[in-house]
Parts: sequence; structure tokens; C-alpha cells
Amino acid sequence: MHRDNRPIGVFDSGIGGLTVASAIRKALPSEDIIYLGDTARVPYGDKSPASIIRFSFENASFLLNLGVKLIVVACNTVSALAIQELRKKFPHVPVIGVLEAGIDACLKEEPESVAVIATRATIKSDAYRRELHRHNPEITVKSIACPLFVPIVEEGLTEHKICSLAMELYLKPLLADPPALLLLACTHYPLLREPLKSYLPAGVKIIDSATACAKYTADYLRKNKLAAKSSSAGIERFYVTDMSSAFYGQAKKFFGCELEHVEKIAIDSRI
Amino acid sequence: MHRDNRPIGVFDSGIGGLTVASAIRKALPSEDIIYLGDTARVPYGDKSPASIIRFSFENASFLLNLGVKLIVVACNTVSALAIQELRKKFPHVPVIGVLEAGIDACLKEEPESVAVIATRATIKSDAYRRELHRHNPEITVKSIACPLFVPIVEEGLTEHKICSLAMELYLKPLLADPPALLLLACTHYPLLREPLKSYLPAGVKIIDSATACAKYTADYLRKNKLAAKSSSAGIERFYVTDMSSAFYGQAKKFFGCELEHVEKIAIDSRI
Repeated sequence: MHRDNRPIGVFDSGIGGLTVASAIRKALPSEDIIYLGDTARVPYGDKSPASIIRFSFENASFLLNLGVKLIVVACNTVSALAIQELRKKFPHVPVIGVLEAGIDACLKEEPESVAVIATRATIKSDAYRRELHRHNPEITVKSIACPLFVPIVEEGLTEHKICSLAMELYLKPLLADPPALLLLACTHYPLLREPLKSYLPAGVKIIDSATACAKYTADYLRKNKLAAKSSSAGIERFYVTDMSSAFYGQAKKFFGCELEHVEKIAIDSRI
Repeated sequence: MHRDNRPIGVFDSGIGGLTVASAIRKALPSEDIIYLGDTARVPYGDKSPASIIRFSFENASFLLNLGVKLIVVACNTVSALAIQELRKKFPHVPVIGVLEAGIDACLKEEPESVAVIATRATIKSDAYRRELHRHNPEITVKSIACPLFVPIVEEGLTEHKICSLAMELYLKPLLADPPALLLLACTHYPLLREPLKSYLPAGVKIIDSATACAKYTADYLRKNKLAAKSSSAGIERFYVTDMSSAFYGQAKKFFGCELEHVEKIAIDSRI
């Protein structure tokens, strides 16, 4: 049986993808994880596809130079806009996107209807709706942009009345006609799982793309005999392209515990 | 009497500074204006001082290569963190910052107390409080970070209940003990002037840094005999480092009318 002790590489435009790294850590305790957050250029959502593709190539190259066995794209914008380009550019490494993992988890539930919530950029890309319909054109898909959810999460206001009002603003139409499944298609949204669960009718199943992505990665490693041999606990290393004074506090919120081994690095670029 | 028909250069990390360009257009109808929005790297607020200084140098160089006679820094983050470095690096061109213009407008009112509202990054820099106290240590200054205001403005929710709740969240303490003056220290906030006016007691004077910056620029040009000779209407040119599909809609909101002559340009950088 083959085994592969090289680390898993994970990148995101910023620190939201730490929810994915955290889910991978829980699902795969023996794997080493290298996380790259391109915090100098975050957010990607408002940038052009050409810029997003170039940033992605640079991020993937950085991880490959550190010897990763697999790349997890923990960024919905990149998953929606650049995943095919990444696979063409780096054909020798498996690339798993948070989008396909979320779609896969959705489809396994065989839902009649799905509501996809995400940032404006992700919803605008229409990638989730398109992928769901590519696999099953019968599913009723509602796509809802919820741009206030990210600042609400970052500001720690998930228990505040503003969060209730924002849920009402975006999701009230779902109360009259609830979907079978709500897909949280943004890496920040796992932190909204509880308020969303309270707001929506009990019958709505909630799938978050971070947990889905961790499960998808675990399945992929097992099927392809790429899982780590060691039974000891894996380690994590974190790289960022810029580090503000708020970094550690914010990062802890998304990763679930204090980050160790954090390094600020430079990525060559021409904007 | 000297006259100078070269354009005024204005830069910001993104498109918020268009409120400043718009106020300059109104205050100085004969001046040509060149606006640069570094939309590929927006927002600056969460980035490190070293990155912000480098980005500022690149933006200023771009404007100087187009022959501007004066640079207006329509970005609070740059005004707070990099204005001295800009003046040292480019000693032959006057550099006006939105921060000093806002402070100047405040001080002219000789207020006993000032509440400064801004993004978390600007408040954290403490630059407004420090500058007010450098000129007059007697002024009572309250500095309040209002991070939800920017997404509320960008989402067009200034009339929504969420905006009322956000004002309550951030500004309720001011109702019991209202300041003489409220300084809007973020380029997005002029669009919140009316809701803020309704929320606060009638006696609170509101100064927005965009209007203050335009007036400051007009005074500077007049005093230094740098105003344009022409009595015909000035023209505007807009440059951005990245352009998303939402650009024109958003930009119109901030500039007040449709943008013409917009060009996407590249700025060399090493992150």
C-alpha cells in the first residue's frame, strides 16, 4: 500500500480559508498542512478573472516549491474562476476546489431544491448554480448574494441583531418556500451556521463548503493511496503575503485555535 | 499672476476617493483632474505600513509621469501612514492629504469636542486624534470605528434598518453626550451624511473629509497661484489597476455621475 508523507497545500486569498484548513486538520489528524493566505492582495472577489488566475498560479507555485502532494483551493473565487487553468498549468499535482467539494456534498443528499448563499462575486460567477445543474438539471437552485455576512463575521456580530436583520434581508424569501438544503458557499460562513440554523425552518439541511472540502480531500487521499503513513499528529505551517496587527486575533477565530509557525513571505508579481 | 494648467492628481486605494474627486470637481470646475484608483490592491486598511508606503510611492509616480501639479491623497489609510514618506520621496510636488484637510476644517470650527468616525484601520492608526490634539490638546476627542458602514454604503443600504442599527451600535453613546462636531473620516461616509444627520441631535455639525479636502485644495491652489487659467470646464481622466464588472455602477454612486475616460493600467510591484 502506497503512502505519502508530503504535506497538503491549502491556499486562499486571505484568512477565511483557515476554516477549510481547520476542517482538514480535524478530518485528517496525521497530515501535515501548509497554508498560504494571500493577505496582501485580499479580497480576490472584486478583481478581474485575469488577475485572479495570475494570483492563483503564483500561490500554487509557492506551495509546490514546498513539496506539497495536493493543492486545496480554499477560495471560492479561485475555485469558480481559475481551477481549470490551475490544472492545465500544474498537471502533475491534484487540485481540489472548495466549490466542487461543496457541490459533491450537495449532490449526495439528492435534494430537490438548494439555496446557495455566498459573496456577491461568487454568486455573480454563477458557478455553483451551473455546476449543480450540470450534474442534475432538475434541482431548483436559488442563488443569494449576502455581502454583509463577511463583515458581520469579521466583526464578531453573529449574535447581534444586525445579523438577524441581515438574515432577514437576504433569506426571508426562503421562509415561505424553504429549500431542502442550504449551501454555505463562502469560507467565512461556517461561523454563521448556528444563527442560520435558528433562523431557518428545522427541515433545512445546512452544508458548509469548509467541512465538505475536508471530507472530499480525505476521500481523495484514501482512494488514491496518498494518505500520510505516520500515526503521529500532523503539523501546520502558515504563510501570509502581508500581516496586519489584527492578523492573529482574526486567524484564531477562523482556525479555531492559536496559529503557530506563521511566516510572512513575498510573492513576485506584476499587477 | 502665475497660472498653472497642469492637472490635479488624485489617488486612492479604490473608488471611495471618487467622493473627493467629485467634491474637487464641484469646487474647482476649471481644473483638469486625473484620478488613480489602485483597485487591484484595495483595501489598504488591513495591510502593513511598509506595503502601504510602497503602494503610495507607485501611485504617486504614476500620477507624476502624467504631469500633475499637485497630488491629493484621497485615502485615509495613506494619509495617516505614508504622507510624510510621500513628501520626502517627492519633494518637488505639493502633497495634500484628506486627513490634514479634515483636521483643518475641524479646527476652523473651534469645537470643544469632536467625534471621529472611520474604518477600523484609520481609528487604530489614531492619526486623527493625534493631529487634533497636536493643534489643540484641549479638544475632547472620541474615536469610533464603524466597520459596517463601508459595506452598507457599497450595498446601497443607507436607508435600510440595518443602517439605523449600525448607527445605534456605533454611535448610541454620542446621544447622551453629543459632540460639537462629527468628522466623517472615511471617503465612503459622505453618502451617510443624511442618515447620520437624522440620527444625531440637531446641534451636531457634520464635516466630511471629501468636501473639506476639496476646499483645502482650492485654497492651496489660490494661495500658491497654481490655479488653472482656463475658464472652460476641466476634464477628468480615471485610471484603475483592476476593473471588475461592478466598477461603473459603484463608481457612479461615489462620483455622482457616469465616468468617462476610464483606463485600466498596470503598476509594477513586488509584494
